Amino acid sequence: MLERFKVPEKDRVYVPVEKARAATEAVFRHAGLDESGARQCADVLITNDLRGVESHGISNQLRNYLRLYGEGKLNPRPNVRVERETDTTTLVNSDGALGIHVAPNAMRMAIAKAKKHGTGTVAVTGAGHLGGAGYHASLAAKENMIGQAMAGPGGSQTLPTFGAEPRFGTHPIAWAAPARSQPPFLFDIATTQVAGNKIQLARRVGADLEPAWIADKDGQPILDRVPVPDEYYQLPFGGTRENSSHKGYGMMAMIDIMCNAMTGVGAGFLTGGGGQVFVATDIQAFIDLDDYFDWMDRFLEGLRNTKPAAGHERVLYPGLSEWEETQARTRDGIPYHREVVEWFESYAAEVGVEIDLR
Amino acid sequence: MLERFKVPEKDRVYVPVEKARAATEAVFRHAGLDESGARQCADVLITNDLRGVESHGISNQLRNYLRLYGEGKLNPRPNVRVERETDTTTLVNSDGALGIHVAPNAMRMAIAKAKKHGTGTVAVTGAGHLGGAGYHASLAAKENMIGQAMAGPGGSQTLPTFGAEPRFGTHPIAWAAPARSQPPFLFDIATTQVAGNKIQLARRVGADLEPAWIADKDGQPILDRVPVPDEYYQLPFGGTRENSSHKGYGMMAMIDIMCNAMTGVGAGFLTGGGGQVFVATDIQAFIDLDDYFDWMDRFLEGLRNTKPAAGHERVLYPGLSEWEETQARTRDGIPYHREVVEWFESYAAEVGVEIDLR
Repeated sequence: MLERFKVPEKDRVYVPVEKARAATEAVFRHAGLDESGARQCADVLITNDLRGVESHGISNQLRNYLRLYGEGKLNPRPNVRVERETDTTTLVNSDGALGIHVAPNAMRMAIAKAKKHGTGTVAVTGAGHLGGAGYHASLAAKENMIGQAMAGPGGSQTLPTFGAEPRFGTHPIAWAAPARSQPPFLFDIATTQVAGNKIQLARRVGADLEPAWIADKDGQPILDRVPVPDEYYQLPFGGTRENSSHKGYGMMAMIDIMCNAMTGVGAGFLTGGGGQVFVATDIQAFIDLDDYFDWMDRFLEGLRNTKPAAGHERVLYPGLSEWEETQARTRDGIPYHREVVEWFESYAAEVGVEIDLR
Repeated sequence: MLERFKVPEKDRVYVPVEKARAATEAVFRHAGLDESGARQCADVLITNDLRGVESHGISNQLRNYLRLYGEGKLNPRPNVRVERETDTTTLVNSDGALGIHVAPNAMRMAIAKAKKHGTGTVAVTGAGHLGGAGYHASLAAKENMIGQAMAGPGGSQTLPTFGAEPRFGTHPIAWAAPARSQPPFLFDIATTQVAGNKIQLARRVGADLEPAWIADKDGQPILDRVPVPDEYYQLPFGGTRENSSHKGYGMMAMIDIMCNAMTGVGAGFLTGGGGQVFVATDIQAFIDLDDYFDWMDRFLEGLRNTKPAAGHERVLYPGLSEWEETQARTRDGIPYHREVVEWFESYAAEVGVEIDLR
């Protein structure tokens, strides 16, 4: 994550990971989820927080989720149904569950199919927020598979290249691949220039946005460095056509097709979308694991050891700095903004759930 | 394609598509391919030329291919072998064939598996140039499937974000999806800012490169508009970190893992890479085709009908302008640069193959 998005030192409250986890499980249980559902939801948020992906952890997401449960817009006890199934594919209706509640199980279904047949693809409809695609993709990597996860949320945020009307959300996608002795590869992105939640985060920490990160309401990319304006649209990654925004746009469109057209949900910008797709590909279907790991470790080492350009300390690969952050935060606690901790404590007190974050 | 990459009007020779096809088949046969192999190879190049993807048609590729056959570096009569197979996956050794020769059959194998089991994934090793990923992905779309194709060529061209040493080629990827009454969706990209062949094309037509399209030999992105320099590295799409080059880089890395680590070829930058992966996902495994097509047509129509931003005529979707170009070129002929036609004619005369391009 860019430095400016980090919580400023003076505003940090370091919360031990197990305290954060227990508190999060407690409020999910209070929202009506069963024990294992609450544990699953908390694990997604805490894993994201450990990785430093604040935008998809407790800070930005938990209060939204709790509000939606409170308003009856999420189903804490879903009756998840299989609507169509083949050897390698399943279409699952999530019955209004939160994405982070049902998506991990969808990926586990894909993994089970891949163990038997080589690959598995599970599509989920009717679920709430995915909580980032990376967590789910990683589940496959832990089983020595290539994991892929994506979601096609609504269509009111992001412009297609050359367009002045929004057609997409942030349309996240992630791929994960295991390694033996190197930290695992996890490529986890929004197909916008910047994750929607990072814009909220920039507003909270008072950071400027970069040129071509957003467009004005008439569809013109804003090419200056500006604070977050009141009204704006997001742009596909690349930002402008000259900088390959058509690649971000095309990727969003593809994600929308797989998540929403292929699942019967309909186009995100017409129906609100929300379909999610999880793919597991068994590495051993192609090659012995030992051979794969030999190459994978050499590949990742080679990327890390690339000579850096002047002005840069080192070359990273996707997942590396998040893995390092996980080690540090497991040791030192998660540095939440004090506003977040205060909200969490006051929410818990208000609804009568006992938590201990300090 | 950006206007500046088109062949200038004064240099165009319009060649009727069937003449171009017959001549191309003839030189492939002369290079040693059998009838059906020559037909397949010509179909890839001509389809790319019809779509206006000059960078992957006769102009840039045919003379390279013929030279490599001439030098014995491509095998015109490969003994393609299945090395590992499951219900849904196949690892194929292409025995040194040209990519455009064997890749379409690899995708057809994936399609056959998807018809039976829902999805199919076929990985190919030891093949030459893929000739663009789009053609192969489209084969699945023609069978009412989602098609995906990718390749992990060498590692001497493109820098990882913050790096000063190359680690990747152009690492192309494509997804194709069928539609009923709208032109089909085909998202077909290099994961660099610009396809390597487009840089050659820019040099040929004297066009400048855009800011952040390439880097100097020390890894610094060149932020001015410049003619193609003698020495340069390519950058992942996005160009700079602020413009999401880490997304292009991550995508390249993922493609390299699937094409090269997962297939035993090894990392592209260590071994020369060259693995290729083809995935077919049967839409009917998830939803009835009629329902899919209803949504898909509305989705694509909605994209086309997006209000354009000021200064832009319309909003395209991936595959639309290439489809329109195909209609025009089928009618009017393919506008090759006269230098290309002259080369083709002199090559054919030299090797004693009769062709007729005028």
